[in-house]
Amino acid sequence: MPRPVVRVPRSSWRATGTAESERAIPEETAIAFTFNTASYAVMMASPQDLEDFAVGFALTEGVVSSLDAIDTIEVVEEEIGIELRVWLKAKDAAEFLGRRRKMAGLPAAACAGWESLIEAMRPPPEVGDGQVLTPDQIMTAVNSLFPQQALNRETRAVHAAGFWDPARGLVAVREDVGRHNSLDKLAGALARDGSTAEQGLVVLTSRVSVEMVQKSAAIGAPIIAAVSAPTALAVRMADACGMTLVAIARKDGFEVFTHPRRIKGTLESHVA
Amino acid sequence: MPRPVVRVPRSSWRATGTAESERAIPEETAIAFTFNTASYAVMMASPQDLEDFAVGFALTEGVVSSLDAIDTIEVVEEEIGIELRVWLKAKDAAEFLGRRRKMAGLPAAACAGWESLIEAMRPPPEVGDGQVLTPDQIMTAVNSLFPQQALNRETRAVHAAGFWDPARGLVAVREDVGRHNSLDKLAGALARDGSTAEQGLVVLTSRVSVEMVQKSAAIGAPIIAAVSAPTALAVRMADACGMTLVAIARKDGFEVFTHPRRIKGTLESHVA
Repeated sequence: MPRPVVRVPRSSWRATGTAESERAIPEETAIAFTFNTASYAVMMASPQDLEDFAVGFALTEGVVSSLDAIDTIEVVEEEIGIELRVWLKAKDAAEFLGRRRKMAGLPAAACAGWESLIEAMRPPPEVGDGQVLTPDQIMTAVNSLFPQQALNRETRAVHAAGFWDPARGLVAVREDVGRHNSLDKLAGALARDGSTAEQGLVVLTSRVSVEMVQKSAAIGAPIIAAVSAPTALAVRMADACGMTLVAIARKDGFEVFTHPRRIKGTLESHVA
Repeated sequence: MPRPVVRVPRSSWRATGTAESERAIPEETAIAFTFNTASYAVMMASPQDLEDFAVGFALTEGVVSSLDAIDTIEVVEEEIGIELRVWLKAKDAAEFLGRRRKMAGLPAAACAGWESLIEAMRPPPEVGDGQVLTPDQIMTAVNSLFPQQALNRETRAVHAAGFWDPARGLVAVREDVGRHNSLDKLAGALARDGSTAEQGLVVLTSRVSVEMVQKSAAIGAPIIAAVSAPTALAVRMADACGMTLVAIARKDGFEVFTHPRRIKGTLESHVA
C-alpha cells in the first residue's frame, strides 16, 4: 500500500545557498470506487483513511443514506491505484443498481452532460437548527484543527476537514491532498463512529466551493467554518439550504456570509 | 453573463469589533463543454476568458492537437451555467467522433472506470529541451505573476497560471477558482496568440498535482515553477516526461525536484 508521505531528493536554491537534501511531500493515488461491482468514479487522493473515504463518499454522493446500507468494504491495491470495493446490502444494492440502470441505457457521453449537472446543482435538503454558538466557540473550533493536522505538519501541502461540537470538542479530523476528499473522509469517520454532524460545525482549511456546502449539507451539518473564502455560488447554496457559512476564519476573527442566527454574543477571548 | 466577481453582504466578527459590510468573492459557474454537439465534461469555473478555456481544454485533453482543428466557439448562457459549444472542422470532428464512438457502446458506468484511468495515467510525450535558465530568471518569472493577478487582487481567493519566457517576459496570465482551469485558460490564450510554451516556463500559484504536470506537458512546457509543493505522483510524472519541476518558489528562492539541468548559475539578485 502506498504511504501518504514520501521523502524525495531535491535541490534547494535559497538566498542562504544551494543544497541537495530531501523534502517530505504528499503522495497522490488514484482511488476507484465500485459499488457491488459497478464502477462509479475515480479520484486522486491521499492513500490513508480509505474505509472512511469509502463510507463518506457513498454518503455525500447519496449512493447510500446511512452506514447500515454498507455490508463490507474491500481495499484492493492495483498497479495504478487502489480500488475501494463497497458491497451494499441486498435491498440497498437493488435500489442503487436500479437507479444506475436508468443511466446505463445512455451512451457514455451522457454522463458528462447537463442532465447530471442539473441533478448535481439541485439544492440539498434544508439542514436542521443545530445549536447557537458563541463567537469564541467558533474560534475555538477553528483553532482546534491545526494541532491535529499530522499529515500537513509533515508536508505543509494537504487539506483538512474536522468536526467540532460544544460537548465533545474536536470529534474527528481527516486530511487529504484534495479538499473534497478530506471532507468525504470526515463524513465517513463520523458515520463509522456513530456520530452525527447535527450539533456542531464542520471546520475546513480550504476555500468553500459549492461542493463543500453540498457535502456538508448531505451529512446534516448546520454550520461550516472555513479558513479561506467562499465562492458566490457556495454562498447562494448555503443560503438556500439554511446553513450558516463562516469563512475567512483567522486569528483575529471570522466573517459570516449566511444565516448568522446560529452565532450570538461578542468575540472576547481571541484578541489579536 | 455572470460576472467573475460578486460583492456580497457579510457580518464581520473581528477583535476590532463586529461590522456589517460587503466582501468581493469569486463567482463559480458550471461550464459544460460540447464538441460538435457531443457533451464531454462539466466543470465549475470562473466565468471569464471562456474562449481561452474552450481552446485550452480541447488541447490539454487531447480532443484536438492544434487550434487549426477548431472552426468556431459559441458561448451559450443557460439557466444553470454556460455551455461552451466547440465546433471542430469536418476532418477533426470525424476523428474525434470516431474515438468517441468506441466509448459510446459502453454503459454509462464505464466512463468512471479503470479503463479511462489507465488512459489518463499514461505519461505524456517527452517535452523538448527548451532553454537553460538562471536561478534569477526563475525568480523573475515567479515574481512577475502577482502584479498581473487582477481577479485575485479583488478576491484573494483564486488561482493563476502564467507563461514567461526570457525573450518576452510574462506572455500571458489567466485566473480561475480552479487551478486546473487557470492552466487550461493559459494553454488556450497561448494557442490563440500563436505562442508556444516550448521556450519558457509555466508559473503556477498553486500546488502541483499530477494533472498540472500532464496539462503543462500537453502544451510542451519544459519547466513548471509553482509557489506550493508538488505531490509525489506529480514528481514521478515530471521525471518520466523530462520536465523540470520547480516548486515551493518563495521570496528567498525555490526547490527543484526533477531534471535540474535546465537551471544553471547562482542565485544572486533575490536575496531575502
